[in-house]
Amino acid sequence: MKRVGIIGASGFAGAELMRLCATHPDLEVAFAAADSQAGTAVGGLYPSLAAAYPGMVLQPWEAIPDDLDVVFLALPHGTSQSIVPKLSAGYIIDLGADFRLDDTALYPAWYGQEHTAPELLDDFVYGLPELFRTSITGATRVAVPGCYVTTAALTLAPLVTQGLIEPTGIVVDAASGVSGAGRAPKASTAFSTVDENFTAYGLLNHRHTPEMQMALSRHAGTDVELLFTPHLAPMNRGILATCYARPTGSPTGDDLLAAMQDAYEGEPFVVVSETIPSTKATLGSNSVHLTVQMDERTGWVVAIGALDNLVKGAAGQAIQCTNLALGLPETAGLAAAGMYP
Amino acid sequence: MKRVGIIGASGFAGAELMRLCATHPDLEVAFAAADSQAGTAVGGLYPSLAAAYPGMVLQPWEAIPDDLDVVFLALPHGTSQSIVPKLSAGYIIDLGADFRLDDTALYPAWYGQEHTAPELLDDFVYGLPELFRTSITGATRVAVPGCYVTTAALTLAPLVTQGLIEPTGIVVDAASGVSGAGRAPKASTAFSTVDENFTAYGLLNHRHTPEMQMALSRHAGTDVELLFTPHLAPMNRGILATCYARPTGSPTGDDLLAAMQDAYEGEPFVVVSETIPSTKATLGSNSVHLTVQMDERTGWVVAIGALDNLVKGAAGQAIQCTNLALGLPETAGLAAAGMYP
Amino acid sequence: MKRVGIIGASGFAGAELMRLCATHPDLEVAFAAADSQAGTAVGGLYPSLAAAYPGMVLQPWEAIPDDLDVVFLALPHGTSQSIVPKLSAGYIIDLGADFRLDDTALYPAWYGQEHTAPELLDDFVYGLPELFRTSITGATRVAVPGCYVTTAALTLAPLVTQGLIEPTGIVVDAASGVSGAGRAPKASTAFSTVDENFTAYGLLNHRHTPEMQMALSRHAGTDVELLFTPHLAPMNRGILATCYARPTGSPTGDDLLAAMQDAYEGEPFVVVSETIPSTKATLGSNSVHLTVQMDERTGWVVAIGALDNLVKGAAGQAIQCTNLALGLPETAGLAAAGMYP
Amino acid sequence: MKRVGIIGASGFAGAELMRLCATHPDLEVAFAAADSQAGTAVGGLYPSLAAAYPGMVLQPWEAIPDDLDVVFLALPHGTSQSIVPKLSAGYIIDLGADFRLDDTALYPAWYGQEHTAPELLDDFVYGLPELFRTSITGATRVAVPGCYVTTAALTLAPLVTQGLIEPTGIVVDAASGVSGAGRAPKASTAFSTVDENFTAYGLLNHRHTPEMQMALSRHAGTDVELLFTPHLAPMNRGILATCYARPTGSPTGDDLLAAMQDAYEGEPFVVVSETIPSTKATLGSNSVHLTVQMDERTGWVVAIGALDNLVKGAAGQAIQCTNLALGLPETAGLAAAGMYP
Repeated sequence: MKRVGIIGASGFAGAELMRLCATHPDLEVAFAAADSQAGTAVGGLYPSLAAAYPGMVLQPWEAIPDDLDVVFLALPHGTSQSIVPKLSAGYIIDLGADFRLDDTALYPAWYGQEHTAPELLDDFVYGLPELFRTSITGATRVAVPGCYVTTAALTLAPLVTQGLIEPTGIVVDAASGVSGAGRAPKASTAFSTVDENFTAYGLLNHRHTPEMQMALSRHAGTDVELLFTPHLAPMNRGILATCYARPTGSPTGDDLLAAMQDAYEGEPFVVVSETIPSTKATLGSNSVHLTVQMDERTGWVVAIGALDNLVKGAAGQAIQCTNLALGLPETAGLAAAGMYP
Repeated sequence: MKRVGIIGASGFAGAELMRLCATHPDLEVAFAAADSQAGTAVGGLYPSLAAAYPGMVLQPWEAIPDDLDVVFLALPHGTSQSIVPKLSAGYIIDLGADFRLDDTALYPAWYGQEHTAPELLDDFVYGLPELFRTSITGATRVAVPGCYVTTAALTLAPLVTQGLIEPTGIVVDAASGVSGAGRAPKASTAFSTVDENFTAYGLLNHRHTPEMQMALSRHAGTDVELLFTPHLAPMNRGILATCYARPTGSPTGDDLLAAMQDAYEGEPFVVVSETIPSTKATLGSNSVHLTVQMDERTGWVVAIGALDNLVKGAAGQAIQCTNLALGLPETAGLAAAGMYP
Repeated sequence: MKRVGIIGASGFAGAELMRLCATHPDLEVAFAAADSQAGTAVGGLYPSLAAAYPGMVLQPWEAIPDDLDVVFLALPHGTSQSIVPKLSAGYIIDLGADFRLDDTALYPAWYGQEHTAPELLDDFVYGLPELFRTSITGATRVAVPGCYVTTAALTLAPLVTQGLIEPTGIVVDAASGVSGAGRAPKASTAFSTVDENFTAYGLLNHRHTPEMQMALSRHAGTDVELLFTPHLAPMNRGILATCYARPTGSPTGDDLLAAMQDAYEGEPFVVVSETIPSTKATLGSNSVHLTVQMDERTGWVVAIGALDNLVKGAAGQAIQCTNLALGLPETAGLAAAGMYP
Repeated sequence: MKRVGIIGASGFAGAELMRLCATHPDLEVAFAAADSQAGTAVGGLYPSLAAAYPGMVLQPWEAIPDDLDVVFLALPHGTSQSIVPKLSAGYIIDLGADFRLDDTALYPAWYGQEHTAPELLDDFVYGLPELFRTSITGATRVAVPGCYVTTAALTLAPLVTQGLIEPTGIVVDAASGVSGAGRAPKASTAFSTVDENFTAYGLLNHRHTPEMQMALSRHAGTDVELLFTPHLAPMNRGILATCYARPTGSPTGDDLLAAMQDAYEGEPFVVVSETIPSTKATLGSNSVHLTVQMDERTGWVVAIGALDNLVKGAAGQAIQCTNLALGLPETAGLAAAGMYP
């Protein structure tokens, strides 16, 4: 058993890490920190965790023990960069944005502040296993991608990398469940605001945009430019991205689907088929579902991906990366089957 | 009081007509037909209507009385064209697709069957008041637009008509509540399928596509071509369309918003503002909410519209057209205020 | 047109009053106050009201004009009692709890504070038209009942008043939509907390308990004692109360149902039938749906009622009372038909 | 690895068994049958299972192989009794009602038909581990309780068995998510019917009533009589039961809570606390959450329990029983932590 610490255990991604670790055969949570909730019982803050973690109490992060094997950070943007330098654990897995972007200039442009630990960026590999597995295997520092980014990058990567679509002019139109907005109560995520509602937000400037471009550009070896429009759907979890791009040649829909299937052949968590993905098929699992079609009439390629934003889009992918880092079976502790209904 | 008959009163659009007529100052439902439910009490099929229509029983449509002033048809596609020739009412308002398209060749192409009464098409005006008010005023036959079409056409018309966007290469990415799929139980609209789910459907070939193109082309006086992707959101009502187009010149977002505001100046049911529309703001009302932005970085225009698919997208718009046809105040019996929450 | 002022227009009951007044033939909102939101446009706080109230801005309540005919107060408990003495309008309709209870000792016991204006209590009539219509007709001060109280009182009154059930030992087990908890963001009403969740709250001591007992005792002329357990259901609106009581004699279910039907004969907003009530049948309307059954096996009477907590349970009932007070048609501006789906 | 067969894999309980077996360390699904869907790919019917069961196809049940260790039946009532006699597997775990009741006279009374294999009833033990663990350990035939029954029995058993409440006059008022009604599309479970709705159903005569009475009577050693009222809440999963009973003596709430905590001391899936249970805290897990209070004012005991109807109320409990039957760790393959949000 590897001893795990979670910093930021009061947020949804942190709580999801605790849920997943509770049934992971090789990871056990030895320390859970949440500064804002220090002193609160885990099962008090999250009754859902009461049966699995009886007696465990949230700590201030500075109380972190020295003997942890793995530390997960699930913190608001800008927080990890001040904590990581003080950690001694062998494996550090960051679910935040602080160590994802390779161009430090993007932080002030999209996040509104300078990066305070740019020298650490090179220590981190980008934790999207299906696209960058080799670099994650055995790594000691992993920056886990954003939820929207994982969806869009896995949907578009086979097409752009194989040169089947133009790398610019792409539109990523996505919808997310509300858990992506975090646990803190606010008017925009109140039940009465969100229930029976569908709306767009973050028009033109959502922070996941440059990360999508980076992930795709790096994988494809060419500059990708896209517009990203997120929407909020009245549900807890799930992201579905509908992506529009122009083909480079004259592929049929079957050509595109075959290319996508080839790219993910053998992947335990990727399902590529003619079935239109739905978020619900991935609920609670680490799976991503994909499809693609070609509209001969208008000349648009339409590619669609879906996943659970808190699992494959956050905590599950973090554990998948941890498994790779530690040399465990990549699927350990992760469900491929979604909870339905 | 004008005496109204509703053929297809068992469907959601028909029931919504009954709801709206119940508080309309000048319309009263004298006859409600639903062949599949003939003999059932209105309040038995729809307990929501029990208090407003005590004792009223659904009839077979052939029992229609001779003295009705207005007949609404809210029927599956292909049904109205066989009934309309047999009706004698002065005003016929059809909520189905049968008399919307002006090119009869589109029916076999998109609806899979020949039109059986093409000679009647010219009798019908297209019932989208904000774009075609003049022709609706005083008309005796109105074909009310589809719900997605109303959303997309009102969102894009000012931009394409004023030549601010390219009329081709447009993407309409929209999400709808489940009521758009009708009342008949099926696996795809079961609660357990839809709740906590977001998915796409009707990829590339949804039937509202040619109608969107027709409405926009006719209003703009130029051929419009677009790709339409509908999604299903876990909610009862509401449509939000996020539309992507290329600008013709170099407009700013403010230019585009001003153009949209000018186009709908004085419209009682249209709200144009910088606020991103949400379906919930229109719930139960006949209002449509619109906005537009310009992404300088990628060169995309993003225009968004939202409405209640059963009101402004169906029964409300039908009554708005009826008001215009009969010479009543256009807003009679229609709420501009949405139900919130 | 009567000129209406609403104090507390930023809350859900206040916003619902504005929605209903927007289509009321005889009431127009001339003044909307919300101290916490003074200076905000009505349509900014509630985009749902943007089309109906363009340009209207929320005011501090002290800016109230002198010439209002009717003032509605939709304020947190304890607030009305300090404002009412300063109002000059001919008709004051309070949607809060301050003037509902006739025994001032109940305020400290259930609300935790002494009443500061007990001398005004006698000025107010209790605004439940189906039970106390005579006293409301022509009244100038009305205290509108709580949402749970309206449901339970209308469900149980015919049975207890006609002596068909024991007046003590009653259980009222009810579920409400989330809007009953108000607009202010809090953890307990966040979407992520409430969605896909069903829970109980306020065990043993919910504040509506003594009001239920008072309303029923006053109508029946005998002391009623009951236990009330509220639950929170994942929906915006609606209350359903399932009530358990012991019969006094040996009535059949038919006897009980007939007694209930007799009691509400001719009521425009009450539907009594064998159909089990559902909240959705009343959505957006001022209707209440009722039924009752007798379980011979265990000797329990089961009576069930449902309504929309913001309409018949708040703003709609307030307008119904206003109509009675002003001598308008009781149903003016109120829908009997629910919005479905 | 034990080889498992599932008969009735197309229903929700069957699909949930497949989800849970996919990550169970000692059980693997070797055969999945669903007569109505024979020939359909598992991942075609349930895309949620596509990643976990690639290539597996649903079979007719008669194709069952001889070498299965465990057979689960998840079938409509009345079906198991004709299949069980033909099965040769060492362990048969039935999730239906056919082998739950010990009094065969109850079948015609509550299920409307005679039992056709009454001689097999004695072979089956009743699979509620927290109440009847001893008999389940090593058993070869297990009848898994109904979802409502599990909730009510675990909530009330400590109180009635310890003689703290009267065994008659009990009211069980419960709400369930929609998945309890099964997968087949019908009007009563359509999204448009259920969403934003709360209603009661099965008044007085729900089939789980006699089973609740049996489970409690058997555990307590005294005849229990209760009234059960189920409700339908707009959510996928979860049952919460609010139970009302009369105390035998004068216990305080603390006395009752302590008795409940004592009864479940050391149970891995039972959480007893002052926290009011909520269904969401148990989502996807095999846990049950309980509390109890005493209302001195009215003399009612209020006890509340919550669980996930498809896990602890069906498939999870079936696996818990299987673990006990096979001598595996009781918690193998079962999550104690709920999925939140």
